[in-house]
Amino acid sequence: MSKALIAAIEAGGTKFNCSVGTGPGDLRSSARIPTTTPAETLRGVVAFFEQAVQEHGPFAAMGVGSFGPIDLRAGSSTYGFITTTPKPGWTNADLLGPLRERFGVPMGFDTDVNAAALGEHLWGAGQGMDSLVYITIGTGIGGGALVDGKLVHGMLHPEMGHLLVPLPATNAQHPLGTCPFHENCLEGYICGPAIEKRWGAPAGTFAEDHECWDEFASILASGLVNLITVLSPQRIILGGGVMHQAHLFPKIHREVLRQLNGYLQTDELLRHVAEYIVPPGLGDEAGILGALALGALAAK
Amino acid sequence: MSKALIAAIEAGGTKFNCSVGTGPGDLRSSARIPTTTPAETLRGVVAFFEQAVQEHGPFAAMGVGSFGPIDLRAGSSTYGFITTTPKPGWTNADLLGPLRERFGVPMGFDTDVNAAALGEHLWGAGQGMDSLVYITIGTGIGGGALVDGKLVHGMLHPEMGHLLVPLPATNAQHPLGTCPFHENCLEGYICGPAIEKRWGAPAGTFAEDHECWDEFASILASGLVNLITVLSPQRIILGGGVMHQAHLFPKIHREVLRQLNGYLQTDELLRHVAEYIVPPGLGDEAGILGALALGALAAK
Repeated sequence: MSKALIAAIEAGGTKFNCSVGTGPGDLRSSARIPTTTPAETLRGVVAFFEQAVQEHGPFAAMGVGSFGPIDLRAGSSTYGFITTTPKPGWTNADLLGPLRERFGVPMGFDTDVNAAALGEHLWGAGQGMDSLVYITIGTGIGGGALVDGKLVHGMLHPEMGHLLVPLPATNAQHPLGTCPFHENCLEGYICGPAIEKRWGAPAGTFAEDHECWDEFASILASGLVNLITVLSPQRIILGGGVMHQAHLFPKIHREVLRQLNGYLQTDELLRHVAEYIVPPGLGDEAGILGALALGALAAK
Repeated sequence: MSKALIAAIEAGGTKFNCSVGTGPGDLRSSARIPTTTPAETLRGVVAFFEQAVQEHGPFAAMGVGSFGPIDLRAGSSTYGFITTTPKPGWTNADLLGPLRERFGVPMGFDTDVNAAALGEHLWGAGQGMDSLVYITIGTGIGGGALVDGKLVHGMLHPEMGHLLVPLPATNAQHPLGTCPFHENCLEGYICGPAIEKRWGAPAGTFAEDHECWDEFASILASGLVNLITVLSPQRIILGGGVMHQAHLFPKIHREVLRQLNGYLQTDELLRHVAEYIVPPGLGDEAGILGALALGALAAK
């Protein structure tokens, strides 16, 4: 991995985190630009990086990990665009074009969660793993993955927040979740706002023994079982605001094993599940360091 | 792809299909060996290939696509074994060892469904696709996948038959499915025996307009939505005995779009779904030709 100076952008629905640096422990300057309109936000981003060049010198490449859906198809006329997001003003917004035009450096681009998966693979909890999943559970749910050391792309990119899952019996009388698209998806039932809608208070306010966490663990575990049956990752990393509550991990471990019910007899599951489903090694910096990693790969 | 003569084995729970050939349209001799005990079955397999060498000359490599779970970890002491199958006599059975010992050629080894995915990629409905899923729906359900042109492995291999899915309301009063492990998995509700248990007659006996097919399409579509949210494949190929009924495809297309509900706005889904979810190009030969392809890759 190059040690060149890289410009990194974690483009989110509420803010764009920007930074320049070379890797973990070396983020030299950072800023949070509010996500307003594309033009205004990108003006703020450009201004930050122009200032950063003044202070730290030129950067070798730029990496952008973005909220989605985004166009990642090489050669597409809308490559580097945010595409069909419901976020007002951002439908078909050209994210990469203005940055490439202004700075003229190699650009790495992927989803925010694929970026985080890459960051964890290089520097965090996924080191030495060719195959891993990174899930973030916060105001929404997203997931990225590496298979055979490469980020997963295909028709589009993973959209793991919308995995359909069976709901536990405790939830049978519950009104519909918060996803405007799906009645039974992970995000609609266990993202932060969904927990608040279901239980009447913000997720962070419930005691460790509140029943909301049993239901949360049950629903999340169904999503993780589905990831395991499809990708069979070597490790699953769970980040995001909701997962700051460390007491959730043992609940999730138990529930994944209960639902798999002995079908998959691997050491990772049966003997080392606490090392199989883990918090991010990079903590809340997984996203920005992942974007930096995208830039570093593009600089090669 | 090499044009050398390859020995291919599709190792199934009821029979081992064996063949020698070079690819589609050139399977020179074939046999079906009943799956009894490992020792007896492998004796039959070895005898077939010894005879084939007499008739067609030596083969350059052998490819084995097997029912699972199997050990694919390079360097493992049980590499090439069938591991924790509930099938009597086959737990921890060494499948590759006796064949390697007898024939001394390079061996390709993977799950039967990963093999079929590879075969479809090289010669069937997945040509030109770097990212695809192959699902078989018959006496059981299994799935294999390629990402970035490579078969998916990780902790283990995909076990897509055991994807957990929400059940439609029509199924609410239905007794549990046929899977001994999971209450809500794809295989337990829509493999051939599950359809027979649920509706009281073999799947092949129901008319095209029987309600069983609406429920089938609904449950299968939830599984496919989950595959799309995790892998975002460029194509999904549905094979196996139950899928011989071509009238199922339009039902499945409609149901996948209904459940995705406009969340993913891709041309593949919105304009070309009939070319996105398709039958195997190799028909019922996907498995044996996939095994041959595993051998051909190993011969390189």
